Amino acid sequence: MTTSIGAVETKSVSFAPPHGLALESGRSLGSVTVAYETYGRLNAEKSNAVLVCHALSGDAHAAGVHSGDPKPGWWDSMIGPGKAFDTDKYFVICSNVLGGCKGTTGPSSVNPATGEPYGLSFPVVTVGDMVEVQRRLIDHLGIDKLLSVSGGSMGGMQVLQWAASYPDRVRSVIPMATSTKHSPQQIAFDEVGRQAIMADPSWRAGNYYKHGQPERGLALARMIGHITYMSDQSMEEKFSRKLKAGEYTFSFATEFEVEGYLKHRGDSFVQRFDANSYLYLTKALDYFDLSGEKLVPLGGPIHTRFLVIAFKSDWLYPPYQSKEIANFLRTRHADVTYCEIQSTYGHDAFLLEFEQETNLIRHFLLKASTDAE
Amino acid sequence: MTTSIGAVETKSVSFAPPHGLALESGRSLGSVTVAYETYGRLNAEKSNAVLVCHALSGDAHAAGVHSGDPKPGWWDSMIGPGKAFDTDKYFVICSNVLGGCKGTTGPSSVNPATGEPYGLSFPVVTVGDMVEVQRRLIDHLGIDKLLSVSGGSMGGMQVLQWAASYPDRVRSVIPMATSTKHSPQQIAFDEVGRQAIMADPSWRAGNYYKHGQPERGLALARMIGHITYMSDQSMEEKFSRKLKAGEYTFSFATEFEVEGYLKHRGDSFVQRFDANSYLYLTKALDYFDLSGEKLVPLGGPIHTRFLVIAFKSDWLYPPYQSKEIANFLRTRHADVTYCEIQSTYGHDAFLLEFEQETNLIRHFLLKASTDAE
Repeated sequence: MTTSIGAVETKSVSFAPPHGLALESGRSLGSVTVAYETYGRLNAEKSNAVLVCHALSGDAHAAGVHSGDPKPGWWDSMIGPGKAFDTDKYFVICSNVLGGCKGTTGPSSVNPATGEPYGLSFPVVTVGDMVEVQRRLIDHLGIDKLLSVSGGSMGGMQVLQWAASYPDRVRSVIPMATSTKHSPQQIAFDEVGRQAIMADPSWRAGNYYKHGQPERGLALARMIGHITYMSDQSMEEKFSRKLKAGEYTFSFATEFEVEGYLKHRGDSFVQRFDANSYLYLTKALDYFDLSGEKLVPLGGPIHTRFLVIAFKSDWLYPPYQSKEIANFLRTRHADVTYCEIQSTYGHDAFLLEFEQETNLIRHFLLKASTDAE
Repeated sequence: MTTSIGAVETKSVSFAPPHGLALESGRSLGSVTVAYETYGRLNAEKSNAVLVCHALSGDAHAAGVHSGDPKPGWWDSMIGPGKAFDTDKYFVICSNVLGGCKGTTGPSSVNPATGEPYGLSFPVVTVGDMVEVQRRLIDHLGIDKLLSVSGGSMGGMQVLQWAASYPDRVRSVIPMATSTKHSPQQIAFDEVGRQAIMADPSWRAGNYYKHGQPERGLALARMIGHITYMSDQSMEEKFSRKLKAGEYTFSFATEFEVEGYLKHRGDSFVQRFDANSYLYLTKALDYFDLSGEKLVPLGGPIHTRFLVIAFKSDWLYPPYQSKEIANFLRTRHADVTYCEIQSTYGHDAFLLEFEQETNLIRHFLLKASTDAE
């Protein structure tokens, strides 16, 4: 029997000058605040810490509930007592990414130099920069070596970046529904989302914070995204050709149920996400490239253990991209397990197929823990 | 050796009151003009006429060249002396669809009742309505029975509609890269395109003709469309992760080649296509539903011969949709051939794989011609 972890709170830590952050772009940020949550307890050896990385629209609130809000964290089905990331055993950490809008410094944060939100003056950040911020958080928490780093989609990229940047600080990693680099099709979908935002006059070249969000543009970007998160089959099962009013209206109103669903998802997204963050995070996805040598340089044994998980119907991050990760790692003689989960949910599967994921991850973490002893 | 058909002209014919058009919506159009082209000669028996139907952004100019414009028609590689639709043998007809913007009555046409462009006062039309207009054109040309009707994508829907509405007036049909009905994923992609147009303030609820097009919205709709017309593999082969400037700009400028390509395709589309027509035609696609009984009612033999063509990498109109057409027709004991062409071009393949198409279609038309003798 699994239960919820219960009430949790988001904490934050700031790194201020002289501990500013040098970015891959060559620019730097004088001060950075990181929002994070932790679940479970760090053991005396500090050997049971697991970092969980969120996807594009996620945040630090991965599990449990916040006071006054009944909605649990985005991976609550995976994190808690007796769950895949068992908080009776592990100390689980999740932080909001650099460039985000849920407590970690991003384009909607106030630039201390001007007293105004950064907007487009915020530097373009990379997945490498995000992981650098996470590394500082891990240092701050006094953890030398993580038992595991796990996440799907953009979270999976951070996982791969940890393996590449800090191979000696991660015993194991679990990249899910991800890729070592965006294909042109993935870049193209991100770009039309960005263009939808930037085409909205309310975007005002990113300086909209006094006026309100570019709501239509951001909603449209989210609608496009949602199509790519589902599969042809899951849409067919959920909506088929069902009509809201039962018959054609012969108008351009929202009439198919799938249209109503996308509109609803778009409209609710603008209530909780910053349009500029959408630009910055999708750009980080598109820049990400840890293909080949960049993931694991030639020479030197790899001690990090890999569990690579893909989902059969995921056409946004198709299984072939995960297979490429596993196949490359095998050429480096890494300890790698590749699993393709038979899901019809499309890319969203990494958030939904928790039973199958739990079976895989529970076992994998146990093995990694044994190594650590 | 195949050659171009050379200089061609677009003609037009109008059907005015009392020959107005009753539409599936229950509304009607008092007068309708149809733009069309013909290639080759109608034989004395009038038994060699082939109707070719265009896709979403096509027009009546399917082959040859217009005076002063070196760009040939959209299916020039398929229509001409010695080509698949051999104009030495066949009389080929192509007309712009109802609701279009290339000479046939559509939302950008002047409403005779007001002297102003219809805009959104134009009635919502269906693929059935488009075919009704084509049937009148065929009557006008004095043709009782078409040797064949052929087309891909939206053109393929018109093909299926001909087989359903006028089985006694078509000896054979060639639906390509199409479906008997749009899936929710296909509806969803159309809907985000429409939302992109309608979110552009320049759209002005469809009354933009005095002010100019909603260019950004229409370009964005076209960019979204183009992603779905290509395959993951064809994008990889064409663009990979190549950068226009050779290195990251750390900005939101167009920098990946795939972004530049989509932008170019979007920008050039707004020079030649009407935004309201985009709304009306995609709506007709979404309404289209000839599944099951609606394609061929139970009872009575089917004399129409079918060649159903799909393309392996087409994920917008996946081969399973074409297989469903063929499988259903077999339950009706129809003479049906199903071919899946091994192309990597995605949905665009129906415009590009002309060699393989030519082999299939040339043979199929010869057999249909023999039947006709």
